[in-house]
Amino acid sequence: MLGVGARHLGIGIATSAGLLASARLLAEPSKASSEAQPGAPRKLVGLQSPVPSDIAIAQAAAVQNVADIATYAGILPSELEMHGTKMAKVSLDVRERLASRPDGNYVVVTGINPTPLGEGKSTTTVGVSQALGAHVGVPVFTCVRQPSMGPTFGIKGGAAGGGYAQVLPMEEFNLHMTGDIHAITAANNLLAAAIDTRMLHEATQSDGALFARLTPAGKDGVRRFAPVMLRRLSKLRINPALRGKERTDAALSDGEQLDLDADYEPQSLTDAEAGAFARLAIDPATITWNRVVDVNDRFLRKIAIGLGPAEKEHGGRSTGYDISVASEIMAVLALATGLGDMRERLGAMVVGASRARQPVSADDLGLGGALTVLMRDALKPTLMQTLEGTPVLVHAGPFANIAHGNSSIVADQIALKLVGRDGFVVTEAGFGADMGMEKFFDIKCRYSGLRPNCVLLVATVRALKMHGDGPAVVAGRPLPAAYRTEELALLAKGVCNMQKHIENAAKFGVPVVVCVNRFATDTEAELQLVKEAALKAGAEAAVVGAHHAHGGMGAVDVAKAVQAACAKSRADEARGEGGFRFLYPLEAPLKAKIETIAKEIYGASGVDYSEEAEAKLALYTEMGFDKLPICMAKTQYSFSHDAARKGVPTGFVLPIKDVRVSVGAGFVYPLCGDMSTMPGLPTRPAYYDVDIDQKTGKIVGLF
Amino acid sequence: MLGVGARHLGIGIATSAGLLASARLLAEPSKASSEAQPGAPRKLVGLQSPVPSDIAIAQAAAVQNVADIATYAGILPSELEMHGTKMAKVSLDVRERLASRPDGNYVVVTGINPTPLGEGKSTTTVGVSQALGAHVGVPVFTCVRQPSMGPTFGIKGGAAGGGYAQVLPMEEFNLHMTGDIHAITAANNLLAAAIDTRMLHEATQSDGALFARLTPAGKDGVRRFAPVMLRRLSKLRINPALRGKERTDAALSDGEQLDLDADYEPQSLTDAEAGAFARLAIDPATITWNRVVDVNDRFLRKIAIGLGPAEKEHGGRSTGYDISVASEIMAVLALATGLGDMRERLGAMVVGASRARQPVSADDLGLGGALTVLMRDALKPTLMQTLEGTPVLVHAGPFANIAHGNSSIVADQIALKLVGRDGFVVTEAGFGADMGMEKFFDIKCRYSGLRPNCVLLVATVRALKMHGDGPAVVAGRPLPAAYRTEELALLAKGVCNMQKHIENAAKFGVPVVVCVNRFATDTEAELQLVKEAALKAGAEAAVVGAHHAHGGMGAVDVAKAVQAACAKSRADEARGEGGFRFLYPLEAPLKAKIETIAKEIYGASGVDYSEEAEAKLALYTEMGFDKLPICMAKTQYSFSHDAARKGVPTGFVLPIKDVRVSVGAGFVYPLCGDMSTMPGLPTRPAYYDVDIDQKTGKIVGLF
Repeated sequence: MLGVGARHLGIGIATSAGLLASARLLAEPSKASSEAQPGAPRKLVGLQSPVPSDIAIAQAAAVQNVADIATYAGILPSELEMHGTKMAKVSLDVRERLASRPDGNYVVVTGINPTPLGEGKSTTTVGVSQALGAHVGVPVFTCVRQPSMGPTFGIKGGAAGGGYAQVLPMEEFNLHMTGDIHAITAANNLLAAAIDTRMLHEATQSDGALFARLTPAGKDGVRRFAPVMLRRLSKLRINPALRGKERTDAALSDGEQLDLDADYEPQSLTDAEAGAFARLAIDPATITWNRVVDVNDRFLRKIAIGLGPAEKEHGGRSTGYDISVASEIMAVLALATGLGDMRERLGAMVVGASRARQPVSADDLGLGGALTVLMRDALKPTLMQTLEGTPVLVHAGPFANIAHGNSSIVADQIALKLVGRDGFVVTEAGFGADMGMEKFFDIKCRYSGLRPNCVLLVATVRALKMHGDGPAVVAGRPLPAAYRTEELALLAKGVCNMQKHIENAAKFGVPVVVCVNRFATDTEAELQLVKEAALKAGAEAAVVGAHHAHGGMGAVDVAKAVQAACAKSRADEARGEGGFRFLYPLEAPLKAKIETIAKEIYGASGVDYSEEAEAKLALYTEMGFDKLPICMAKTQYSFSHDAARKGVPTGFVLPIKDVRVSVGAGFVYPLCGDMSTMPGLPTRPAYYDVDIDQKTGKIVGLF
Repeated sequence: MLGVGARHLGIGIATSAGLLASARLLAEPSKASSEAQPGAPRKLVGLQSPVPSDIAIAQAAAVQNVADIATYAGILPSELEMHGTKMAKVSLDVRERLASRPDGNYVVVTGINPTPLGEGKSTTTVGVSQALGAHVGVPVFTCVRQPSMGPTFGIKGGAAGGGYAQVLPMEEFNLHMTGDIHAITAANNLLAAAIDTRMLHEATQSDGALFARLTPAGKDGVRRFAPVMLRRLSKLRINPALRGKERTDAALSDGEQLDLDADYEPQSLTDAEAGAFARLAIDPATITWNRVVDVNDRFLRKIAIGLGPAEKEHGGRSTGYDISVASEIMAVLALATGLGDMRERLGAMVVGASRARQPVSADDLGLGGALTVLMRDALKPTLMQTLEGTPVLVHAGPFANIAHGNSSIVADQIALKLVGRDGFVVTEAGFGADMGMEKFFDIKCRYSGLRPNCVLLVATVRALKMHGDGPAVVAGRPLPAAYRTEELALLAKGVCNMQKHIENAAKFGVPVVVCVNRFATDTEAELQLVKEAALKAGAEAAVVGAHHAHGGMGAVDVAKAVQAACAKSRADEARGEGGFRFLYPLEAPLKAKIETIAKEIYGASGVDYSEEAEAKLALYTEMGFDKLPICMAKTQYSFSHDAARKGVPTGFVLPIKDVRVSVGAGFVYPLCGDMSTMPGLPTRPAYYDVDIDQKTGKIVGLF
């Protein structure tokens, strides 16, 4: 079992005696026979050893028509929007149709703090799904994120799993897919253009002219507010019924919606009201809305815009680009619970503040509706399949560096209904468990209302040795010998990292199964040591997985352990014992919430706020954003803010350098250091190898 | 019949006596009966008067499943890639399967020099197609461009036709469609990032380090060139067989491909060869490759990039964004004749010059293959339908301001095979005929090898009055009275504009049918005057069209005139008379080609080149780009370079301010003035009205 990085380093894979147990399963009559109905789980490609390249395996697979996958999974043709024969968008109507059906078991896959090579979390997510669906024989859905296309052409490493645990078709998965990220890019950049253009128009027009242009007469000669404008009027408490009773600039952030008449005539506003409505007065220094592109373009990290003759005079300014998945719109997509909710979140996104320190939203700019239209199709998850024909929903991929790094709520909800009570939904949380799992629970589950039944924690001997003070692991350099030979002392010292993650999961009341993602060089003694340490820390089970080399067959034991843990979790809950709980209440002050995460999850002794962070926390509290959950922006390589501190660091004070807020997505994100939001390209990017074979029409050189 | 702009101004539409002739046709048994087979042409929505909004008509239509449209049109299921049920991508395999079938009649729709409100060229393209397919009853395909999404949210005006002559679904048509423009944006910006990052890496690494990193050892420890690198080696004439015989920097532009061995070992290069290979030495001042975005974002017209600490030291520079459709990749998509041809064109795109004045291409940067992969799906045209169920191929939309402004070659080729000998393909050329038609003939037909049978020239009484010195027509302002009342004198003075376009078409040997796109305020005397003037100038026919208000029924006379003109053109050709010819031979020097267009088509007395233009023409000739066709970048509002000069200006000298080249697309484009490549947003952009009706899920406020 090799992660992305290990494959990159060219390490071969060998079968091992430890696989015999699961290999025996193959001799038993499989529940997915070769005469299964169309769309049923089945092996789409034969196993080879050594394991070929990811793209070679993927292109050799007999991909099923995704319409058959859908039918088998219980999706109606009317709920399916085909994109060719291998991908389809799934309507959210599935949830409503199956509203009365109980949800399936909800399994979140997370990991210990990884090496820079990755520890195979996606591969495990896919592998255990293949095991559940094609070997154990229970209904299963895999829910994963859509990867950013930028890194695809930068440094190699697909996001569709690897080896014999992959999502198909891997080319589309890693490229345009069904266009969701492109929609985000378009929506994000329309909002950015609107901000700068509005500032220009405000700089060059009087209040009166601005208001007149914003509310022109229609074909019938009557001036009207656009429906989106009523939101701003309501926020400003501009309403005939209130005139003379309240100041138009009062209570901007109390969220109360005034019941305004759409036919309320613009002419009836006082000059002061018209001015307040028309002039957003955005303070350029407060703008947090960057432009985005789905390319690793480091030269866009910091740029100056508006240097043309017509724009320069009124506001050339410094700004930057992020990679598209870092857009707040991606986080909104992941956290929206439906079309109406997405509309509200998109409109609520705050792009900066007025000179009077009032938040300026996308709806203030008139854009909430248009952004929703651009994102309408993106809200539907994309149905794909694993190498063993089990269904996968690919949807959203918020950047784990600054957002919550989890796939979408709606995909999980659809999947939980489709698998039904005895089925399983395996969903992946990004980064290590201190980040991805905590956010999964405290942000995603909080907004979705879904309750997880089991944490599947992925660990590797390699990463645990690193946490035991093993030599540095650097992408692109040969792996030191300690990682290729038995080193029980290093390992014994490093298992504490895994143990702390197991203990953390317990704080949420969710049972943990550890999957040791096996590498060819792992020894039996090493694997045993890890398993024992996991059980000692409170894991329900600790099992070795070999899905990269053997597909679902290699993860049958993992699947069975997950099944048992879910059953126990449900039984406990039925008896009123245990059960899922959040780490902190939303009502707590921002600082209290930050400190709870820092101390309870990271093991910090305290939190240190920069002056800027203090000011932002005060501002956001003043603006009414203090009831939002916290989304920490921290390295994934350590429990602490310092990537070099391995194992379980203690006694450190977590520094909060700055704080930002994603009002639409719905979280406040403190920055524990400089978080990159735009990767670069290496000297020899992966694109050198990518081409189309003109004879076969197939893509070559992609992973 | 109203163009986009007229609808915008709120002018109503009334039926007129002139429509009775075509209305009578309805009483005859229609060839498309109500019991027609699925996918057959039929009216999808009933006519109303006054004509509702475009989106109201479109959403009321009973859209057919595009799979049925495809079957009826002769496309096999295996050649179709569904995108939902209303759009599908069509495989280029259709051409090969039907290679032996004769092409249908090829009709290009163009227009006189328009007013800023547009004269209904797209509406006519759709309307005459509906007439041919649903009323005359012959096989027909409409081929149109995909519109840029930027203006959709800026100043209103859909591109899918209008009234009862529209392409469905109009929402998708005007928004993401099947993602082709998004693919162009992604590919364009990957190339841009590659340029700047390569310059950074070259600035910070020695020749040796650069070469070593570009040709690293694989898993087997062997260093190899990527296949794309062999193209650069060939261009540089680096080859063991040549060593000592030729200088490595010689004959860079002779295009000769050396037969290189892919297993040729990088180590065997001399240091000088390795340096020449690895160091592109791009001169930042020569870079012509801009980034693009499909948003009207004027603040990106001129920007400074690379201002971050790591980049600034080595090359922050000034650059800009264009709207995505202005990307050369869009022009490549439109002119490529197949996947292999697109691969060559994408790799050949020149992004700038080296310090030694050698062109640097996408393949030099290692990107030709990756760009092709990104554009693979975009190469397939998208099948949609008109309001009367006739098939439409939507494909490509190169920006008419700087490129050739015509839809794709492959769509026309597919359509011509599908309709067969007696069928019709109606394709639209952007801008006025002096621009769009000339480029259609001299660029598009040159690369496609296709031969047009008929020009359908769209004229309006409104625009012809303007050419007769009528008052200025300004978008957003009420139309002066002269355009709403009978003004025969103005009209008589202005018909010269139409007549010159008719005479120009004759220079290519193609017969012209004039369609007078009727407005409600046009009088019979006015229409008669225009028709007579058209026939006098040599038009085969001049017919009034009323498709906006009446759909195909309103354009039956136009369709029949087109049918007759095509029949005559074919008969003439069969007798060896007339026939299509280019305006200039490719072998002529660049200046001779420019001057031929300026004098023959525009009526200029001569051409004046700026110093910069002279230098570029010399450089491009030196680089070997002088055999390319010319793609003039000129205003569409006048035959001359001055938009204010109406009618048929004479005695003017055409100024060429600068010259650029699109080597991949395959044309040199002289700039006759400042051509905008990035529109802006107005104070109240169209996005204010756009939203989703949460009850119905339908898009509202889009046109």
